[in-house]
Amino acid sequence: AGTHLDVNREQRLGFPEVIYGEGKTAEQILNIMNRLSEYTDRILATRVDAEKGAYVLSQFPEAQYDEVGRTLTWRKHPVTEATGLYGKAAVVCAGTSDLPVASEAAATAAIMGCEVIRIHDVGVAGIHRLFAKLDQIREADVIIVVAGMEGALASVLGGLVDKPMIAVPTSIGYGAHYEGLAALLSMLNSCAPGVTVVNIDNGFGAGYAAATILRNRGNVQP
Amino acid sequence: AGTHLDVNREQRLGFPEVIYGEGKTAEQILNIMNRLSEYTDRILATRVDAEKGAYVLSQFPEAQYDEVGRTLTWRKHPVTEATGLYGKAAVVCAGTSDLPVASEAAATAAIMGCEVIRIHDVGVAGIHRLFAKLDQIREADVIIVVAGMEGALASVLGGLVDKPMIAVPTSIGYGAHYEGLAALLSMLNSCAPGVTVVNIDNGFGAGYAAATILRNRGNVQP
Amino acid sequence: AGTHLDVNREQRLGFPEVIYGEGKTAEQILNIMNRLSEYTDRILATRVDAEKGAYVLSQFPEAQYDEVGRTLTWRKHPVTEATGLYGKAAVVCAGTSDLPVASEAAATAAIMGCEVIRIHDVGVAGIHRLFAKLDQIREADVIIVVAGMEGALASVLGGLVDKPMIAVPTSIGYGAHYEGLAALLSMLNSCAPGVTVVNIDNGFGAGYAAATILRNRGNVQP
Amino acid sequence: AGTHLDVNREQRLGFPEVIYGEGKTAEQILNIMNRLSEYTDRILATRVDAEKGAYVLSQFPEAQYDEVGRTLTWRKHPVTEATGLYGKAAVVCAGTSDLPVASEAAATAAIMGCEVIRIHDVGVAGIHRLFAKLDQIREADVIIVVAGMEGALASVLGGLVDKPMIAVPTSIGYGAHYEGLAALLSMLNSCAPGVTVVNIDNGFGAGYAAATILRNRGNVQP
Amino acid sequence: AGTHLDVNREQRLGFPEVIYGEGKTAEQILNIMNRLSEYTDRILATRVDAEKGAYVLSQFPEAQYDEVGRTLTWRKHPVTEATGLYGKAAVVCAGTSDLPVASEAAATAAIMGCEVIRIHDVGVAGIHRLFAKLDQIREADVIIVVAGMEGALASVLGGLVDKPMIAVPTSIGYGAHYEGLAALLSMLNSCAPGVTVVNIDNGFGAGYAAATILRNRGNVQP
Amino acid sequence: AGTHLDVNREQRLGFPEVIYGEGKTAEQILNIMNRLSEYTDRILATRVDAEKGAYVLSQFPEAQYDEVGRTLTWRKHPVTEATGLYGKAAVVCAGTSDLPVASEAAATAAIMGCEVIRIHDVGVAGIHRLFAKLDQIREADVIIVVAGMEGALASVLGGLVDKPMIAVPTSIGYGAHYEGLAALLSMLNSCAPGVTVVNIDNGFGAGYAAATILRNRGNVQP
Amino acid sequence: AGTHLDVNREQRLGFPEVIYGEGKTAEQILNIMNRLSEYTDRILATRVDAEKGAYVLSQFPEAQYDEVGRTLTWRKHPVTEATGLYGKAAVVCAGTSDLPVASEAAATAAIMGCEVIRIHDVGVAGIHRLFAKLDQIREADVIIVVAGMEGALASVLGGLVDKPMIAVPTSIGYGAHYEGLAALLSMLNSCAPGVTVVNIDNGFGAGYAAATILRNRGNVQP
Amino acid sequence: AGTHLDVNREQRLGFPEVIYGEGKTAEQILNIMNRLSEYTDRILATRVDAEKGAYVLSQFPEAQYDEVGRTLTWRKHPVTEATGLYGKAAVVCAGTSDLPVASEAAATAAIMGCEVIRIHDVGVAGIHRLFAKLDQIREADVIIVVAGMEGALASVLGGLVDKPMIAVPTSIGYGAHYEGLAALLSMLNSCAPGVTVVNIDNGFGAGYAAATILRNRGNVQP
Ligand SMILES: Nc1ncnc2c1ncn2[C@@H]1O[C@H](COP(=O)(O)O)[C@@H](O)[C@H]1O
Ligand SMILES: Nc1ncnc2c1ncn2[C@@H]1O[C@H](COP(=O)(O)O)[C@@H](O)[C@H]1O
Ligand SMILES: Nc1ncnc2c1ncn2[C@@H]1O[C@H](COP(=O)(O)O)[C@@H](O)[C@H]1O
Ligand SMILES: Nc1ncnc2c1ncn2[C@@H]1O[C@H](COP(=O)(O)O)[C@@H](O)[C@H]1O
Ligand SMILES: [Mg+2]
Ligand SMILES: [Mg+2]
Ligand SMILES: [Mg+2]
Ligand SMILES: [Mg+2]
Ligand SMILES: [Mg+2]
Ligand SMILES: [Mg+2]
Ligand SMILES: [Mg+2]
Ligand SMILES: [Mg+2]
Repeated sequence: AGTHLDVNREQRLGFPEVIYGEGKTAEQILNIMNRLSEYTDRILATRVDAEKGAYVLSQFPEAQYDEVGRTLTWRKHPVTEATGLYGKAAVVCAGTSDLPVASEAAATAAIMGCEVIRIHDVGVAGIHRLFAKLDQIREADVIIVVAGMEGALASVLGGLVDKPMIAVPTSIGYGAHYEGLAALLSMLNSCAPGVTVVNIDNGFGAGYAAATILRNRGNVQP
Repeated sequence: AGTHLDVNREQRLGFPEVIYGEGKTAEQILNIMNRLSEYTDRILATRVDAEKGAYVLSQFPEAQYDEVGRTLTWRKHPVTEATGLYGKAAVVCAGTSDLPVASEAAATAAIMGCEVIRIHDVGVAGIHRLFAKLDQIREADVIIVVAGMEGALASVLGGLVDKPMIAVPTSIGYGAHYEGLAALLSMLNSCAPGVTVVNIDNGFGAGYAAATILRNRGNVQP
Repeated sequence: AGTHLDVNREQRLGFPEVIYGEGKTAEQILNIMNRLSEYTDRILATRVDAEKGAYVLSQFPEAQYDEVGRTLTWRKHPVTEATGLYGKAAVVCAGTSDLPVASEAAATAAIMGCEVIRIHDVGVAGIHRLFAKLDQIREADVIIVVAGMEGALASVLGGLVDKPMIAVPTSIGYGAHYEGLAALLSMLNSCAPGVTVVNIDNGFGAGYAAATILRNRGNVQP
Repeated sequence: AGTHLDVNREQRLGFPEVIYGEGKTAEQILNIMNRLSEYTDRILATRVDAEKGAYVLSQFPEAQYDEVGRTLTWRKHPVTEATGLYGKAAVVCAGTSDLPVASEAAATAAIMGCEVIRIHDVGVAGIHRLFAKLDQIREADVIIVVAGMEGALASVLGGLVDKPMIAVPTSIGYGAHYEGLAALLSMLNSCAPGVTVVNIDNGFGAGYAAATILRNRGNVQP
Repeated sequence: AGTHLDVNREQRLGFPEVIYGEGKTAEQILNIMNRLSEYTDRILATRVDAEKGAYVLSQFPEAQYDEVGRTLTWRKHPVTEATGLYGKAAVVCAGTSDLPVASEAAATAAIMGCEVIRIHDVGVAGIHRLFAKLDQIREADVIIVVAGMEGALASVLGGLVDKPMIAVPTSIGYGAHYEGLAALLSMLNSCAPGVTVVNIDNGFGAGYAAATILRNRGNVQP
Repeated sequence: AGTHLDVNREQRLGFPEVIYGEGKTAEQILNIMNRLSEYTDRILATRVDAEKGAYVLSQFPEAQYDEVGRTLTWRKHPVTEATGLYGKAAVVCAGTSDLPVASEAAATAAIMGCEVIRIHDVGVAGIHRLFAKLDQIREADVIIVVAGMEGALASVLGGLVDKPMIAVPTSIGYGAHYEGLAALLSMLNSCAPGVTVVNIDNGFGAGYAAATILRNRGNVQP
Repeated sequence: AGTHLDVNREQRLGFPEVIYGEGKTAEQILNIMNRLSEYTDRILATRVDAEKGAYVLSQFPEAQYDEVGRTLTWRKHPVTEATGLYGKAAVVCAGTSDLPVASEAAATAAIMGCEVIRIHDVGVAGIHRLFAKLDQIREADVIIVVAGMEGALASVLGGLVDKPMIAVPTSIGYGAHYEGLAALLSMLNSCAPGVTVVNIDNGFGAGYAAATILRNRGNVQP
Repeated sequence: AGTHLDVNREQRLGFPEVIYGEGKTAEQILNIMNRLSEYTDRILATRVDAEKGAYVLSQFPEAQYDEVGRTLTWRKHPVTEATGLYGKAAVVCAGTSDLPVASEAAATAAIMGCEVIRIHDVGVAGIHRLFAKLDQIREADVIIVVAGMEGALASVLGGLVDKPMIAVPTSIGYGAHYEGLAALLSMLNSCAPGVTVVNIDNGFGAGYAAATILRNRGNVQP
């Protein structure tokens, strides 16, 4: 019985299997974490609500729970520049409501070895706020843009920086937003060249892609 | 037989019936223009292709044909500040391919009595180009934004100026653009407050709305 | 921590940042209102449910809460013709179920300085009701039309008045209404010229656009 | 080989099988007409383009071809009040571009025994034109409304007459019209009670339904 | 305050305004019923849930509530052949889950003066069940077909009877049914000629259309 | 250069790689056929238009071309009961316009070793035509149903026979048919149990699935 | 009153009517089971939640309830090879969240006489897991593939085995998954030949189709 | 007049403005190339059909035209390891019909400084072909996956390699493929972690993103 873990995923993909918490009980999440902790030193669980998070923490106190991003993370050894900090990922976020998705992206990139910098409330309705942060964003090695509504932030930023950029459309909006479709189509049709996109609300996917980019840079020892 | 003209539309709506050229023959367009010219001093025909335009001009030489916007216009008396120039409309356009729609908007606003200023190639992929034109745009009394792809220009400009703004999504794009749907949804979900939207490629509607706004300002004599 | 306010939005856009109450706690709304009240004399919060509204009023008793439109408004100095009443906005509403959206539009236009007149229950199924109000509607300087179902009211009224018109499709309907899509497409394809459209249920956007049109008329002192 | 005719359809449904000309050659249409003429006295073929129509007429000169509605009809004995004129069907049409669909509806209703009255160019953008025809429309026993764009005519008329009404959305429009979807959804969501709808551009279906309603009235001898 | 009734709707459309219960409180429904009962002798309220129904009955005991169809009806004078029974409407229903919609259609047709016959559980998966009822269905003067899933019943029955037919797609289904879209498209594309369609789950509209057809037959005194 | 053939597909899947003719030149098709004929004794190419078909036949005269289904087939040794006739597949087709898809299905099943029987023009608008063929259909071991419009034939037949059934929606229809979507959704939501579906117009897929079912029956020697 | 059972369905289709539990009360399900048990020896009810399942078991203790697949089954006589075990069906499942649908498929195939083998957690993200089970899968006579997300498992497996394959897209996913649409479209467009598809989450339909395929194989005695 | 070039794009984004050839005349493309060649040493034009390509080559013979990918490229100085070869990009392609998109991606990555390796005809229907190339693919520093149909290749490969991966859905398919939507949704919902996606048929975007990733690696001198 139980879930069949993909035990050699770390060798194949560079990171062990990630636990998708949606639809799993707290007990199931805990059980998988216990099994994973036997053969890996890094664990990530996403979409874990506050109640499940509290339960798991009570049984697995070394883990960390982030309420905004709903992630559980555990790392046996802290990431340091010595042990393999791959580079800097900026998570840039348009509005307050997009923060859960941005936090999921940030937690994913961090547990996978990136230094993460967070920029928020820089939606294009007040574009001077974005310009005020541009130097900071340009210092990053990879950029994750998280935006709902019309998702224009991806295009604007995509025309201002020369770093790899991953855009995450969020389901924040209403009416003809269609739970993120408006932002998704917007980002897929960005007039800025080279913007790549992940699924609506998929902060995890963006963080994972960013970390994979950084891990594969030639000048670091993972 | 023939089309029943809505002869008192000018009294009711402030402008006589406009001829929608799509699906009409050059002869039909000419015939309606002749009939309209009997009781009004301003005529607009849209979606008139080059061949039809040439034919009409050969028979109705006082009209003017614009090849880019595919409009025919005729005005018995030139518009001057004395005879009722309502104000200034800026038609701001993201990319070269959006020019036909922008020109339709411009021709419509002009024939209806607006002074029109044209700004183009200010797509957000190179946002400094937009900032370079901002002072000029801010001088207008109403702004029409024409953009395809992800239509982000409407949101960016909407956060920078305090004038009424009408956004026109265009069908320029491919793949998941869905002939303008991406830009339409983007503009309907703009994070800038108060952006209004017309149908995809509907330059006419935007020009008409802009002119209606300007005509209804209290300080001018139409 | 906390939301980064767009503090110079009033200078840029003519009205300070509006609080979007959806997904914010009553405490967060109150906190932003307190901060905003330090540098502006007008506040609007939308999508504030009754419970949150009551809490905010208990702490910020000078504000006003409208249960139907779910808006919180505060104005340090009452709007008078002397201090800048920009003009008259008519909010015309098809059915009883559309009233929340119409009220959001009305509250927005009012706090921004418009005199607002309200017309309701004039859906086209009993079109004589609309004709009975036509003179009153024609006195307005800008018209907001709010309708669900097939949204035909926008087209009918659009063919009867020569004022700027902003149509708001509502999500009122069922089955093949698709939460407002039927009304949205209907309004975007209006056979009346110059109708502009905002997002489904976006009373705020319509009120904002109407007020922007009126504020920019040449003959008033804002 | 060849098409298997549904030879007893007239007994079952009150009218023999109708030939759908789309995708059939002129020869195939002629061949079916010849076979049908052996056991019925009434033939209708729809979606027959001008070239095919000319060919069929050259071989089957008793038939009649309508270029606008693209129908071929043949009736051995003329319809008269004596031989079974079922009643009056009004075909009401919003714009000039909708005429092909309206003509298909009219030809279908006529060949099936209805007296048909035609009203056109009464789109709601100039609603006084509709009111001018209302008495004439009210004399009909069943009403077919044909409209593209936002299809509002069905709702307006549906609120003014107490006769059975069949609405036909047409594909006339562009952009977010989606080849008739906007009009279809509009008509399905009509706020006027009891409006029934057929497929986009399906003039045939509307004419057929109207004739079926009239044939089944108790007071006539078919 | 309160709803503006469309008081002369009965003269115009043949039946007084119908109360749409969705989103109205029991008190509001009762209040409108009281007002309507002053100038009409027939009342219909639809989409009234059991709780609201019980409340209204307690205050307006002469009304009748149908739990399945969620309708409230009141008729001052019973309908008899003498006072105007217009004819027979068959409500044919595919599956048990479609009964609420079928009952709404039946209640509407009945209150409007039709004799209603009910046929159910004749879905095409066991088509002999339909054939067993065919004679009974053929006796009706108008037929309402109610079906979810793929809605094939409309096409099958449409090929077997020569009466006016109104098809109601229901939202019964799952997955790629899209809350009735599958059945709606199916019915709009019926290969049987002359099938007309109303909105998804719109039993009211079908009953109304059926009654309008019957009321307009020449041989009865309404 | 050139296409990399999947040379061991026959061992893996029971039939060699099939040539999809769309977008390939006649030369390319011929070239692949020549290469395939070296290691297999059966070839199928689909979506080959008449011109390409004629060219290939001129160079590869042993092949057979079917104009209706647009298939090229070649079999070194004729299929006989001795060499592996797997069983009987019925291809049942609603209307004349569906024949190309039905023929593609038939050619695929035949080349793969099935005895194919063809039934056409049995659409549900005249359901007696289907009943007339029912005994013949019931003799088949697997049934392919091909239908456009509302695709009801699949549900009706699915409730009458106890054989495996594969439904193919076709793009035949117009308006709200959406190039086959109406039929596809209809078949996916069939109220008859166990109907399986392939892509719109995918006669090939249906024939392939039918042949795979028959080849895997225990009592035959392929 | 009550449901009209399709009593001769077993003779016609090879299996008695299946009870669709959604929207039926526990009492209704029990009542139908009691009636069915009078003339058949096999009963299946699907979409029965745990509470209803418990109630039915308390009254009909010979039945079996499966909590994961939410099915109730009853078979008077156990299925044995002697009494008609038709063959082996493999139910292959991509992820843990797809198990309810897979279990519905398995229960359906089993009650209809198939030997069922279950394979799970073989999603393509760790494709070695699938290869490890390939020999086992290849022993089956028919294969049901159950997958959500992008549903790629159907294509991969479809290219590896030569057995009839039925793919079931599930609604497991989020964002641009659209409750199973992504997996449905993916399976309909599978590049592996001959994959057939049932509705989203329709485990029942897949199990039914699989059992129908096996029952119709020539070499078994049902 | 003419296009306003974004002259400092190279400084900002690392590569000069790319010419989108669709809708531009050969003369316009040539003219922009001439202007660009004055201030940059690398030019890329996409979507240039064969006829336009030939014209440009006749006037600008140093450029190179690729017929399959429809790209024009020019580089003043050849790229060498010394002058800045950023790393290796693998362009992996499912089917022959996807080659135009794959070639656009390859040309873009190459002109931007990447070493490009091409792998084609490795669609998942014959998955051994992919495994045969896996070692070669794993040597790349970034992977572009190009696939139409159901796009499963992205998921399969995404579970086998630990490099950054950009997936390009193509419009190759028919029926319920919806011009690439099936592949797009499939890739957005990939069960393999970290797959990023660009617009349908956007080979340019994928090549650009890949080159941006490689250019930003720490250990190379661009
Ligand atoms: N009801 C509303 N609908 C759409 N946008 C709104 C609404 N209310 C406020 N807004 C916009 O949302 C912005 C604030 O978003 P946030 O920063 O998430 O609070 C405001 O500046 C307004 O432009
Ligand atoms: N314009 C039309 N639109 C929809 N259905 C039609 C039309 N004309 C004919 N039909 C139907 O198509 C059937 C004939 O189809 P077919 O057997 O393909 O010729 C007729 O019996 C009519 O029911
Ligand atoms: N899970 C299911 N999904 C789809 N159809 C089902 C399912 N379970 C039962 N059915 C079908 O639904 C029919 C019964 O529907 P009903 O008459 O409403 O109970 C059965 O004959 C089956 O064909
Ligand atoms: N094939 C392509 N697909 C999408 N965008 C492209 C493509 N080729 C060029 N572009 C973008 O289009 C911009 C030029 O657009 P334009 O100004 O209309 O020529 C370039 O700067 C690129 O960012
Ligand atoms: Mg904000
Ligand atoms: Mg007109
Ligand atoms: Mg440009
Ligand atoms: Mg009312
Ligand atoms: Mg049943
Ligand atoms: Mg036929
Ligand atoms: Mg797993
Ligand atoms: Mg191949």
